[in-house]
Amino acid sequence: MKKPPRPPGAAVTAAEVGRRAGVSQSAVSRAFSPGKSISSKTRQKVLAAADELGYRPNLIARSLMTRRSNIVGLAVAPLENPFYAALVKELAQGLRPSGRHLLLFPAASQTEPDPQIEEVLSYHVDALILASTTLSSTLANRCRSLGVPVLLINRASPLEGVSTITGENHRGGETIARFLLAGGHRRIAYIAGLEHTSTSRDREAGLVEGLRQGGVELFARAVGDYSVERAVAAARALLDAPERPDAIFVANDYMALPVIQLIRGEYGLRVPEDISLVGFDGIPEAGYSGSGLTTYSQPVAGFVAGALSVLDSLIENTGALGSGVQVEGQLIVRSSARLPQTGLIECDGTQTWIG
Amino acid sequence: MKKPPRPPGAAVTAAEVGRRAGVSQSAVSRAFSPGKSISSKTRQKVLAAADELGYRPNLIARSLMTRRSNIVGLAVAPLENPFYAALVKELAQGLRPSGRHLLLFPAASQTEPDPQIEEVLSYHVDALILASTTLSSTLANRCRSLGVPVLLINRASPLEGVSTITGENHRGGETIARFLLAGGHRRIAYIAGLEHTSTSRDREAGLVEGLRQGGVELFARAVGDYSVERAVAAARALLDAPERPDAIFVANDYMALPVIQLIRGEYGLRVPEDISLVGFDGIPEAGYSGSGLTTYSQPVAGFVAGALSVLDSLIENTGALGSGVQVEGQLIVRSSARLPQTGLIECDGTQTWIG
Repeated sequence: MKKPPRPPGAAVTAAEVGRRAGVSQSAVSRAFSPGKSISSKTRQKVLAAADELGYRPNLIARSLMTRRSNIVGLAVAPLENPFYAALVKELAQGLRPSGRHLLLFPAASQTEPDPQIEEVLSYHVDALILASTTLSSTLANRCRSLGVPVLLINRASPLEGVSTITGENHRGGETIARFLLAGGHRRIAYIAGLEHTSTSRDREAGLVEGLRQGGVELFARAVGDYSVERAVAAARALLDAPERPDAIFVANDYMALPVIQLIRGEYGLRVPEDISLVGFDGIPEAGYSGSGLTTYSQPVAGFVAGALSVLDSLIENTGALGSGVQVEGQLIVRSSARLPQTGLIECDGTQTWIG
Repeated sequence: MKKPPRPPGAAVTAAEVGRRAGVSQSAVSRAFSPGKSISSKTRQKVLAAADELGYRPNLIARSLMTRRSNIVGLAVAPLENPFYAALVKELAQGLRPSGRHLLLFPAASQTEPDPQIEEVLSYHVDALILASTTLSSTLANRCRSLGVPVLLINRASPLEGVSTITGENHRGGETIARFLLAGGHRRIAYIAGLEHTSTSRDREAGLVEGLRQGGVELFARAVGDYSVERAVAAARALLDAPERPDAIFVANDYMALPVIQLIRGEYGLRVPEDISLVGFDGIPEAGYSGSGLTTYSQPVAGFVAGALSVLDSLIENTGALGSGVQVEGQLIVRSSARLPQTGLIECDGTQTWIG
C-alpha cells in the first residue's frame, strides 16, 4: 500500500510537484484548474508526480484569497418528484465547465423549508439556489446583507432583488382549461399542490381564468399538497362526491400518475371516456405507454440553461438586481384526455395542442 | 436595503459580535456550531448581532485548522431512478446532526463514471461516497494515498480497504427464482442492468443458482442497462422471440415499471395470467395501485443508517480498514406475479414471501 512520503500535516507544495514532474509551477496550477489549457501529456506528468508526493491543491485555501469557494448551495426539497431529480442532476452536470459544485442543504421539514441559514453561509457559498422551496424574507435579507446572490427555480418571489426561473404556470393552466373545454368537458376539477406555492396558485389561477373565458366555473377542487398519498385522497374525495367531475387537472405529473392508476384500477373508470386527466411538468414517466398522460410540459433543460446563465452573471457581479427568466412550455397530448376536434399538431412523434 | 456596516473585505470578528450581543466569544462560536448546546435566547441575540454587523463565521478557514471541511463528496449517477433520489435525499437529511453536507460530483459520463478526482480532492472532502457507480482502482488508490475514506453504496468492490453498503443481491435473486418456481413458472427470463455492476451480476447469479436448485435453467436473458429505453427494447426482444418466457425478473423496479406497462398495453398480455413480472428495490412507485409490482425490496433507510454509521467511524479514524455492511431485504408480494400455494405471510397490510 502506497504511503505519502512525509508525515501528514507537512504540506507538499506545487513547486515541489513541478520539480518532480519536470514542469513549471504554473503548469501544476493549470493541471488542477478546471477549464485551463494544458496538454494531456503534461497533465499526466503532473498528476503522476502529485500522486507520488501526496500533493493535493488546496482550493479551500485558494478560495480565501479569491473570495470564491466554487460552492453553490442548493436547498432541495422533493427529489422524489422526477422533475426535481432531473433538475438537480442536469444542474450538477451543467456546472461542470465552471468548476463549481452543488452543496445540498436539506429542508428542516416541509413546514420549515428554509435551510439552516448560518450553515449555508458558513461554507461561503458563491450563490444559493432554492429549487421548489419558497424563499423566506429572513433568509433573503440575510443573504442580501452578506452579498450572497439567491436564485429561485420553479418558484416566484415577491421579494425585491431575488432572481427567479419559473415556468408558464398561469399560461399552462389557461391552456389546459381551453383544451378541456374544447374536448367537450364542463365539470372540470383541480387537484392543487401545496397551497402556499406559486406553482400551485398560478396554475389554478390560469385554469380558473381559462374556464371563465369559456363561461364555465371551476367545478370542484381538492388539495394534494404535491404528495402522492394526499393526491390519492384528494382524488377519492372528488370521485366519491354525489356528482363527479368529468375532467381533472392535477397540479403536477408526480401526483397525476398515481391518481390515473387509482381511477382506472380501484374505480374501474375508463380514461378518457369516463374522465379526462391532465398533468403538469412533462416528466418522462408521463410518457410511458401505460400512462399516456396528457401534460403541460416544462423542459428541465430550459430551467437549467436559464439557471446557469443567471448564476454566472450573479456570481460575477453580485450587485446585479434580481432578474426573472420564464421557461416556455407546451401541452403534450397523449391518451389520458379527450381530444378536441381542432388545434392538434404532430411533430417528430409528439402531439401538441395549440388551440 | 440593509448594507453591511463596513467595506467588504474587512472581516467582522466573533469577539465584536459577542460585544454587540453582550455575550462571550465562546457563546458566539457555539451559536454557529451545529449540535452545540446554547439557549435559544442567547442564540437569537448572537444571530441578531451577527446580522447587524454582517458577520459570518468562517467554516472554511476553520477547516484549515481542524483539517475537517464538513464536506462529504457524493458521486451520484442515476437520480432518475427513485431509489437513488430517495437515497440522496435521506442521506442529506441524515447528515444534518453532524453538520456535514453533501457536495455533488456528477459523473463525467455513463462510460466514464468517475468524478474528476482532482476536483473532489481539492475541496478537501472528509470522505467520498460513491452511490451506484463502480470505484476505479485509480480513484481508490489516489484517495487512499491521501487518507480520504471512500464508501460505496449499493456497489461491491474487490478493492482492499474500501467500505461498502450493499443489499442482498444474490439472496434476492435466489429468492425470486424459488418464488417463481413455486408459482409454477418454468420459462424464466432475466433483464439485466449494466453488465459490469455488482448489483446486476449478483442478482443474476442468485437467480441462476435458485433456478439450478429447482432443476431449471435460465430461459433467456436480455440487457436493459438500467435505462428505461434499453429495458423496453430488451423486453421486446424477449416477447418477440418464437417462444416467450412465462416470467421475467427485471433487475430493478425503475426498469420493471415501463416494462409492465409495455406488456399490458402494447402486447395486450395479462399480468400475471400470461406472464409474471418481478422487480428489485421496492421503490414507492412499485406499490401504486395500477403497478402492483412484486419486488425484492431493499430499504433506503437501511442503506442510509449503515452509511451514516460507517461514515462516522471512517472520518473519526481514517486509518480504519474497509468494512462491509449488508442491508436485509424481503420479497414484497403484490399482483404482478402468480402466487405460490405456500409461504405467503401478511403483516400490516404488506404481503411477503418467506417460502
